[in-house]
Amino acid sequence: MADKNDEMIVTPWEVRGKIDYDRLIELFGTQRIDQKLKERIYRVAGEKHMYLERDLFFSHRDLDWLLDEYEKGDKFVIYTGRGPSGPVHIGHIVPWIFTKWLQKRFKTRLYFQLTNDEKFWFNEELTIEDVHRFTRENAIDLLALGFEPENTFLVDDIKDISLLYEIAVRVAKKVTFSTAKAVFGFENSMNIGGIWYPAMQAVLAFLHSEITGTNTPCLIPCAIDQDPHWRVTRDVADKLGYYKPASIQNRFVPGLAEGGKMSASDPMSAIFMTDKPKLAKKKVMNAFTGGRSTAEEQRRLGANPDICSVFKYYNFIFVPDNKELADIERKCRSGEMLCGECKQILVPRVLDFLERHQSAREEVKDRVDEFSASRLMDEIKR
Amino acid sequence: MADKNDEMIVTPWEVRGKIDYDRLIELFGTQRIDQKLKERIYRVAGEKHMYLERDLFFSHRDLDWLLDEYEKGDKFVIYTGRGPSGPVHIGHIVPWIFTKWLQKRFKTRLYFQLTNDEKFWFNEELTIEDVHRFTRENAIDLLALGFEPENTFLVDDIKDISLLYEIAVRVAKKVTFSTAKAVFGFENSMNIGGIWYPAMQAVLAFLHSEITGTNTPCLIPCAIDQDPHWRVTRDVADKLGYYKPASIQNRFVPGLAEGGKMSASDPMSAIFMTDKPKLAKKKVMNAFTGGRSTAEEQRRLGANPDICSVFKYYNFIFVPDNKELADIERKCRSGEMLCGECKQILVPRVLDFLERHQSAREEVKDRVDEFSASRLMDEIKR
Repeated sequence: MADKNDEMIVTPWEVRGKIDYDRLIELFGTQRIDQKLKERIYRVAGEKHMYLERDLFFSHRDLDWLLDEYEKGDKFVIYTGRGPSGPVHIGHIVPWIFTKWLQKRFKTRLYFQLTNDEKFWFNEELTIEDVHRFTRENAIDLLALGFEPENTFLVDDIKDISLLYEIAVRVAKKVTFSTAKAVFGFENSMNIGGIWYPAMQAVLAFLHSEITGTNTPCLIPCAIDQDPHWRVTRDVADKLGYYKPASIQNRFVPGLAEGGKMSASDPMSAIFMTDKPKLAKKKVMNAFTGGRSTAEEQRRLGANPDICSVFKYYNFIFVPDNKELADIERKCRSGEMLCGECKQILVPRVLDFLERHQSAREEVKDRVDEFSASRLMDEIKR
Repeated sequence: MADKNDEMIVTPWEVRGKIDYDRLIELFGTQRIDQKLKERIYRVAGEKHMYLERDLFFSHRDLDWLLDEYEKGDKFVIYTGRGPSGPVHIGHIVPWIFTKWLQKRFKTRLYFQLTNDEKFWFNEELTIEDVHRFTRENAIDLLALGFEPENTFLVDDIKDISLLYEIAVRVAKKVTFSTAKAVFGFENSMNIGGIWYPAMQAVLAFLHSEITGTNTPCLIPCAIDQDPHWRVTRDVADKLGYYKPASIQNRFVPGLAEGGKMSASDPMSAIFMTDKPKLAKKKVMNAFTGGRSTAEEQRRLGANPDICSVFKYYNFIFVPDNKELADIERKCRSGEMLCGECKQILVPRVLDFLERHQSAREEVKDRVDEFSASRLMDEIKR
């Protein structure tokens, strides 16, 4: 009998068990990003990106088509988002860094959805005030990465509903409860907000087309657990006469505990963007690694970076240089470097990263409204 | 085996079969408006109303409580609405006339919801343009009855969504699909907009309280088929800390065809407010009555006003005078007056009513925006 903890469950609201990414590609029916496609992206974008090199973004839908259109002069827009159910941690930031790169290289608009209605419906304990507060705080974390208002539109599901509702109304007519049940696994105990929600998440794939009156390709960078939404969205796109949105999908960024777990109930399992240096340092020093029981044993047998959360942090963000990363890996596997020493490399990088981020937060925190999608109400051509 | 056509089906989206109003009161668990309550309403309102006298409004929830509060100085607001799925006919106007009376006698605000999202979701063939057009046209018919902007707020579900969504989001969290399924009979083939919709219809019961920051009683005059909505709304009210809305419920106003049927596919079955005189006259002359096969037989045996659509029109709108109504009934039953003669009484009254209405429509048609609930955005205290 399979260990219950090993059973893989991946929905937009639950990721559990040991994740088999090959199996996910097969289950969801997405495409792998192969070497040929990577090289094509690099050629069109004009540079490489470590998240493609290191297969953090590993799966896609219709990316070839999107690049065909782009090369024909049919520019796309980017759509991603965040469910504001709590503070932002480093794991959340990783795909946003890639999103920023995409926006910059393809010189295009980013629509960033803050799905406060969703989080309110899917988390029993969250109040409406909670999700409003997290919406604002999470937006500050996004903007601290250095976006420009000109091309960046924060869409707050509740506050910007007048921009979204009519499109959502049209989407919702094309999605039955049967479909939502089959795709998302909804039970009859689901509240009617949660059932309606997939319409809201589909809207942003069409928003730019609606506003401008021109059918425009859309690229969605996101974690692969969101794919069920895009299946529904792509199906509806056809029925409403829009392009199906393309997507580029990343692996889950692991936490600091054993098995890469990150849980809201264990604040030590993730480094939050507003953590104070002392706390962040403590979290790194307590992180789960692939080390041995004793220093002697580790010197002799080496450690295992494959299961080490510190090494994953290097891979995903803190060691962009491939040579340095290979060097760390070699020293780890050989037992030349122990986990304590290794963490001493990570600590100053994390602290520096947080310090810069927190100072950028301060600079942008009163400018959130400049990025509001409410500006778009004037642009609407429909 | 019961005749399938006799099977009574009453939901907010379907009214079918022979309606047994006593059974509806029992099924829905509402209260009958008895003589004592009528007299209390008259006393507080300062005058009688024929729709209560003639039991057109026959059922209620919490009307006693509402009047208690009113007499204590705790004023209520009125909420009713219309699903803009087509043009307005005389049957729709009847409860609005009563609503206007309530508003005037109790000197209070009316929130009138135009549920274009609902009608779009529940009618496969309606386009979004259709429901927007009917929203505007139906609003003109309401306003032609002579409301004042000061106390009358038209709430367009789609256009005024920014006023409604956050409240609907909070309502929706408290309603499961199980509940919606049980109350409304939703099938899995229902679209996810239709499933969400009950949250939207509940909102207006709380809107005034939300805007003013003061929990305010609410009275909903409506046809009894809407009661399932108020059951859900009242349940949620408790959970959100609002007063449960009271309601005063009317019988269905019958059409002109046999059995009082009115169907969108048969335009002869109802008199629309924008019908030209010639067409309206034709409809009255073709209306189903309780007459006999031959004039001779009718002179001898009399006719039956109980099943006659012409008599129902007298009762509901065109013969406010009780003495005149009794006189017509007597002449009908005795065979003194034949159906052709009787219809000659109705025709000029209908034409006069339509002429005055159509001229009032012309006067108000460019003033619809003055009544828009979007004015309320400035009032919001929350």
